Amino acid sequence: MKEKQIILKKRPCGIPSEENFDMIEREVREIMDGEVQIQTLFLSVDPYMRERMTPMKSHMESFGLKEVITGTMIGKIMESKHPDFTEDDIVSGFLGWQEFPISNGTNIRKIEPLPVPYQAMLSVLGSPGLTAYFGLLDVGKPKSGETIVISGAAGAVGSMVGQIAKIHGCRVIGISGSDDKNAYLVNELGFDGAINYKTEEDIEGELRKLCPDGIDIYFDNVGNEWINNITKLINPFARIVLCGQISQYNGETPYIDPKIFGRITKNRAIMQGYLISGLDPQRSEAARSEIAQWILEGRIKYTETISDGLDSAPKALIDLFHGKNIGKQLVRLGSKIRS
Amino acid sequence: MKEKQIILKKRPCGIPSEENFDMIEREVREIMDGEVQIQTLFLSVDPYMRERMTPMKSHMESFGLKEVITGTMIGKIMESKHPDFTEDDIVSGFLGWQEFPISNGTNIRKIEPLPVPYQAMLSVLGSPGLTAYFGLLDVGKPKSGETIVISGAAGAVGSMVGQIAKIHGCRVIGISGSDDKNAYLVNELGFDGAINYKTEEDIEGELRKLCPDGIDIYFDNVGNEWINNITKLINPFARIVLCGQISQYNGETPYIDPKIFGRITKNRAIMQGYLISGLDPQRSEAARSEIAQWILEGRIKYTETISDGLDSAPKALIDLFHGKNIGKQLVRLGSKIRS
Repeated sequence: MKEKQIILKKRPCGIPSEENFDMIEREVREIMDGEVQIQTLFLSVDPYMRERMTPMKSHMESFGLKEVITGTMIGKIMESKHPDFTEDDIVSGFLGWQEFPISNGTNIRKIEPLPVPYQAMLSVLGSPGLTAYFGLLDVGKPKSGETIVISGAAGAVGSMVGQIAKIHGCRVIGISGSDDKNAYLVNELGFDGAINYKTEEDIEGELRKLCPDGIDIYFDNVGNEWINNITKLINPFARIVLCGQISQYNGETPYIDPKIFGRITKNRAIMQGYLISGLDPQRSEAARSEIAQWILEGRIKYTETISDGLDSAPKALIDLFHGKNIGKQLVRLGSKIRS
Repeated sequence: MKEKQIILKKRPCGIPSEENFDMIEREVREIMDGEVQIQTLFLSVDPYMRERMTPMKSHMESFGLKEVITGTMIGKIMESKHPDFTEDDIVSGFLGWQEFPISNGTNIRKIEPLPVPYQAMLSVLGSPGLTAYFGLLDVGKPKSGETIVISGAAGAVGSMVGQIAKIHGCRVIGISGSDDKNAYLVNELGFDGAINYKTEEDIEGELRKLCPDGIDIYFDNVGNEWINNITKLINPFARIVLCGQISQYNGETPYIDPKIFGRITKNRAIMQGYLISGLDPQRSEAARSEIAQWILEGRIKYTETISDGLDSAPKALIDLFHGKNIGKQLVRLGSKIRS
């Protein structure tokens, strides 16, 4: 049996393009005792992958050159020689961008039946959802009546942060890069306001209008120069959650005003980094249950941007850096059948 | 009776100079019922005063133009028509740079006998000491075996932070602007290492040498570009305490690398502003007692840089921005006698 794989052909400078990737065909070997053969159903496409394309010291290993891209995914067990998995089990895993990966069971996890489609384990019930949940609740510490501003607001993390903040009684303002996204944030997700940074010439003025009581929480997914404006408006004891620097992943270097430190000092504000890792499994499970409940009650909505076919994965990742997705970007391989 | 006062003659651009101040003579009026007449003994000279020279939104009011400079001080009651104060009481207060201020009792506080000279209420037992104590313990949260780097290390706050961190079992590295200061830090105060930023060409390399296990706490009193180097060396869950931006108070704008946000995120580090205000009086008293005990046990040493005469006050403040002080900068008026 053969399978297709996406490999890192060439390391990118700046925003990656299709020439950084290649699709190759390789022979799929037979599985050994203790292994399972998986059919990939969904691939998760995430901003942090850009960093792994560069050989940098990061919290995760870099992709190897000419090696298969890896990430989180959803698959179905095709054949099992592992005692914990049986054929047709649905698993989430950390595996390659390939059709039929093999696992020894350490990097996959069986998904129990869910009240939502199983690919939600890559979005609202997976890392983006839990990042939003714990980043907001543990670091942002929202209180009813407070104002939160969210950058990258229409992304998988940002859109969840805003909705959870609404549940906690906050005034929620999003920043995104299109009017469509902003309409989605305000009309579908119940945000109190949204700024289109591509067309708004006076972002600070607009923030002042939309945040008449100042800013208590800034949930930053982009790491750009808005921090300069935001810190002018923060209230005493404000919390700034640094959760991603998508604007910088491609080599952009925004101007950071050193005055932000004085503003943080005077307001005794906190700027804190948040990354999902090393989470207590019990807390994760409790969070997933609460999020699932919110979805069932209609209090949390989620959107996926899905591209079809393994060959569409590079473009799906590239599009992420051009801000083309609303909600979670996924690649679907589901229609493939074992040959 | 007449007295001399120092007034703000002209608002400064950049580092203040003597031309921004003037010494004038004014008639001292008789006190009324409920008031006291004070003889100023010591004036406190503090970095935050630079900000008050500019009409900016700050956590404190700006100095008025042509009005007397105000700050913390130590004085002796000369005459009292206030029930809570009697002649010869020693008080600390927030009053003018003048010889014989009048108070209605709301901005002064009687100092009970201390085991150290009473001007310690302006340094180790006053705002700088409590800023160091609570900034380090509440925000820096030092743990035995951790490494702390302190900027402005030979100043009133920095020198205390380092010594308290030593008491808590930390490896302590200071950054200051002279070899004399560094000899004081290492030989007198027991710091484990010190960097002279004026002569050291490779501050990052030196930090790497002196902090072989990385940096767990950065206590920043200067707000300059070292944050770029420091964040390269921080450990997971590091704490950065922003406690002062003396380098910026005079209009310097250091280059801040936007990559610091990624480093904070990856390390789930905290950057938090600290200012002493709104402290619980009981906690302050407990901290003062503990610091006084440490002084008596020889575990905390403190140094004062004292200039003599009210007319020396402007230069004392200016010198602060040229880094001329070791420890607390004070102005002594003690030898003056009521005319």
